[in-house]
Amino acid sequence: MEKIYLDHASTTPVDERVTMAMLPYFTQKFGNASSPHSFGLEAQKGLEDSRETLAKFIGAQREEIVFTSGGTESNNLALIGAARHARRLKTKGNHLIVSRIEHPSVLETAQYLEKEGFRVTYLSVDKYGKVSLEELQNALSDQTILVSVIHASNEIGTLQPVADIGKITRGKNILFHIDAVQVVGHLPVDVKALNADLLSLAGHKFYGPKGIGALYVRKGVQIDSYLFGGNQEKGLRASTENVTGAIGLAKAIEICQTRMEREEQQQTKLRNSLINGVLKSIDGSHLNGHPQERLPNNAHFSFEGIKGEALLLSLDMSGIAASMGSACKAGSMEPSHVLKAIGLSNELAFGALRISIGRWTHKDHIAYLLEQLPKAVNQLRK
Amino acid sequence: MEKIYLDHASTTPVDERVTMAMLPYFTQKFGNASSPHSFGLEAQKGLEDSRETLAKFIGAQREEIVFTSGGTESNNLALIGAARHARRLKTKGNHLIVSRIEHPSVLETAQYLEKEGFRVTYLSVDKYGKVSLEELQNALSDQTILVSVIHASNEIGTLQPVADIGKITRGKNILFHIDAVQVVGHLPVDVKALNADLLSLAGHKFYGPKGIGALYVRKGVQIDSYLFGGNQEKGLRASTENVTGAIGLAKAIEICQTRMEREEQQQTKLRNSLINGVLKSIDGSHLNGHPQERLPNNAHFSFEGIKGEALLLSLDMSGIAASMGSACKAGSMEPSHVLKAIGLSNELAFGALRISIGRWTHKDHIAYLLEQLPKAVNQLRK
Repeated sequence: MEKIYLDHASTTPVDERVTMAMLPYFTQKFGNASSPHSFGLEAQKGLEDSRETLAKFIGAQREEIVFTSGGTESNNLALIGAARHARRLKTKGNHLIVSRIEHPSVLETAQYLEKEGFRVTYLSVDKYGKVSLEELQNALSDQTILVSVIHASNEIGTLQPVADIGKITRGKNILFHIDAVQVVGHLPVDVKALNADLLSLAGHKFYGPKGIGALYVRKGVQIDSYLFGGNQEKGLRASTENVTGAIGLAKAIEICQTRMEREEQQQTKLRNSLINGVLKSIDGSHLNGHPQERLPNNAHFSFEGIKGEALLLSLDMSGIAASMGSACKAGSMEPSHVLKAIGLSNELAFGALRISIGRWTHKDHIAYLLEQLPKAVNQLRK
Repeated sequence: MEKIYLDHASTTPVDERVTMAMLPYFTQKFGNASSPHSFGLEAQKGLEDSRETLAKFIGAQREEIVFTSGGTESNNLALIGAARHARRLKTKGNHLIVSRIEHPSVLETAQYLEKEGFRVTYLSVDKYGKVSLEELQNALSDQTILVSVIHASNEIGTLQPVADIGKITRGKNILFHIDAVQVVGHLPVDVKALNADLLSLAGHKFYGPKGIGALYVRKGVQIDSYLFGGNQEKGLRASTENVTGAIGLAKAIEICQTRMEREEQQQTKLRNSLINGVLKSIDGSHLNGHPQERLPNNAHFSFEGIKGEALLLSLDMSGIAASMGSACKAGSMEPSHVLKAIGLSNELAFGALRISIGRWTHKDHIAYLLEQLPKAVNQLRK
């Protein structure tokens, strides 16, 4: 049985060309990028070229990119780094604003900062998962250090009005952090157009390797470091640089550059046929997230009278890999905070299914899913 | 000109067999190890098997291993995690003890914790770089949370009496963290024999990939997490697991298991011939660190009347890659804190050279170095 992977929002396979680009950096160009000899300089060149590739892709400059170990670390560094800096230099108040549907790496970091004495406002969202600009405006004060909003929900795929938020924060000299982990490589991202001050991304979400990510830090924006012990990444992230990871991330970006527009169209088409097919063929099925303003590769459903875990298991036995919404919360017995925030009942929150398609998803895969899914749902409802 | 790499303490080339072991996890077994479907379970199996391999190698149990992004993160997590836990639960006082010759990732973390209100004692060392057990004993109090000592200095290679320290701390119910980044894979490490509570290591120091490390956390030892946002690594380290990195680290360990004893003997022999050759052929040359109780692959010298940077450049032009002692401090204009701690003058601290040999270092490489180094020193002294 062919296995069909429809969980690209959790992680993607590494593109073969990415693996090939990394290989020489394991065994030959293996130097420590901070070493001042020829091996080090060779590694440093690879690292800096990768930084340049990524920077250009998001409209930034090379020196505005900090490589990290992934999206979670980028989000932690953005929030904690900004909060600590403000506290240490007493430049600002102690107030942060995030939405209720952030990824746990933002939400739990905000909760940690609350314990450290910061005040956090959690913005509610509408039934599609969009934050209200008016609510944001009302929450801002002269104590506000930072606003952090997820570019697109990792669960329900809804795109946020990040460009509008950026206009508001920049005017008030408040930092704006965008968690763009689900968006970079899938839709165009321009940090200038978005008025982003900080922006997180992760290599393994766009066919690059795991263990590498980045934080964009706009020139002039000051945050404190988070890992201590060396001057790497301009002092913002001590640790021997993961050069191979950076090379892989940059190669993945290069591939996205040439394919992104086409993939967006293809995936949007596949996704729409999937959504229509599911809603038509399964009674008591609901689409979560915004019907149009959503990630091209994301379809998220709730089914009445179904436990999501059982549905996943059933699909897995038919060779289909999908998700309830977030690998990070897997094993947790609580309903998704995102689905609660958009107002779903516990029944619908527990009956969730996220299908996220990818570079090699074919219409035959969707056809097979549309054949198996109604059967699985009916079986489980018996 | 053949390039000769003698900077293995900075980083090592990845063993070809390690690269081969990682390859399937990039493109085929690429699942998110936290996903509950077949792709996820396959990745999880790779991750847990790797954890088991590493655990056994250091005499630990699988559930005592936390994968991190490297040695720096492991050290940060150990110190900050232990300190925060003690403060949060008020289980202990607010006192930490580290040596003056720790790696910056311990030293700067300790300094950060001082700013957070913790008290830190910095143990002095003797002229060989060894901490005194008596001084340690005197520094301990009922307020002491943790003692952190580097197993072997990354600069001068001196081995510390970690087993003796472990006996002292365990008896007093004080946590003992060992930064074993330079030792694991090179000399036997048994966490039980050492009475270690926490122990840091990094894949790229023993022919594994960069971007992956681990922290041993003894069963029953409680520390706070440091990266927020998911339940990975038993809640101690949120982030999508770097499965490929863990696979590579484990394969590197497997290779070390079969070769470590032989390599220790070979490298000790090469190192001794190097030390003897240098001290005999170059006037005003001094060995730093302990003459016997040092890493098998480390030789560290000071040369009178020489600037280390100039010497490195000269060697690099002869095709030899070496170091002054720490890539993490490269570019810094201050003398090494380790060399100051063992009592060197600024002249000798600035005139430092670290040669660290590795798996593929041949006696011809050492012969070539012994031919080039005296020439370079004489030239620079003119």
